Amino acid sequence: MEPSEIELKTLDEVLRRARLAAEETGFAGIAAAVVLDDGILAYGENQVHLDNDPTRHAEIVAISRACHSVKRPDLTGATLVSSLQPCEMCLAAMRFAGIGRLLFAARQDNVAAKYFVFPGLRLPDFERAASEGFAARGGVCEHRVLDLYADGQE
Amino acid sequence: MEPSEIELKTLDEVLRRARLAAEETGFAGIAAAVVLDDGILAYGENQVHLDNDPTRHAEIVAISRACHSVKRPDLTGATLVSSLQPCEMCLAAMRFAGIGRLLFAARQDNVAAKYFVFPGLRLPDFERAASEGFAARGGVCEHRVLDLYADGQE
Repeated sequence: MEPSEIELKTLDEVLRRARLAAEETGFAGIAAAVVLDDGILAYGENQVHLDNDPTRHAEIVAISRACHSVKRPDLTGATLVSSLQPCEMCLAAMRFAGIGRLLFAARQDNVAAKYFVFPGLRLPDFERAASEGFAARGGVCEHRVLDLYADGQE
Repeated sequence: MEPSEIELKTLDEVLRRARLAAEETGFAGIAAAVVLDDGILAYGENQVHLDNDPTRHAEIVAISRACHSVKRPDLTGATLVSSLQPCEMCLAAMRFAGIGRLLFAARQDNVAAKYFVFPGLRLPDFERAASEGFAARGGVCEHRVLDLYADGQE
C-alpha cells in the first residue's frame, strides 16, 4: 500500500514518541497511533511494565483510546501506525476494531524474536487467513528505531 | 490435556457467569477466568460494548485482572479458562502472559464466524507456530453455552 501524507506524518511522530518512551521509566520504546480521515484519534505507548499488564501493548492502548474518543468499538476507515510490526495480539485487535490499513517501521525479521509469540506465522500468513482483506506496509523509516528492538525489551 | 479438578470447577462457574452476562445490559455472554495453583486469580466478562472498546474480551479482562492481583505481567504456571474458544487476540495475550494451559467450552467450528478474524488459521495452526508449546482442551461442557454463540453477538 502507498501511505498517505497524514499516515507518514503520524509515523514520524510515532517514531519520535517511541524514542522518548525508551528513555522513560516503566514505559518501553514502542509507540502507536490511530489515524482516521485527516486526524489523529489517539496515540499509545507500551505500558506492560508500567501497568503490570501484558496486554497493554502500544497498539492496544492506542486502539482503546481511539474507540473511547469516538464512543464506539469500531474504527472502520482508520489506519493503525506503529513503530514496530504489531504482534499477533495487536494485529487481531486491529481487525476486531475494523481497521483496514496498517503502517509500521521495524519489521519482524529485523527485531528480537520475543516480540512475537507465534513466530511460525508471519504477516503474509495472517493476510491470507483474514476474514476481510487489509492493507499493510512495513519497513518505512525502519532505520530510526531498529536499535530499540535489538535486545527484546518490551 | 486432562483438566484438573480446579480447572473443571472454574469452567463450571465461568459457564454460569457467561449465561448471567448474556442477560445483562452492555455485557455479552462470554466469560473467562485465570486459575493458578489451587486458586482462581480473576474472572472477566466481555465488556466490548459496555466500554466501547473492541479489545475488552473476557479473556483480556481476566488476564489484566489476574496480573494486577499478582502485581506482575507474568502468569507462568496458570490456566486460562473460557466459555468460548479464545480468538486470535486472546490466544496471543495468553502466550504473552506466559500462560501454558487453556480450557474452553464452545469450539470455533460450532459457533458464529464473527468471533474470529483470521478464520484461515485454526487452533492447531497456532499450536504449531508457537514459540513455546502450550496445552489446550476445548469442547468441555460445550452444550451448556452453544446457544449463546449461534448468532454472533459479542
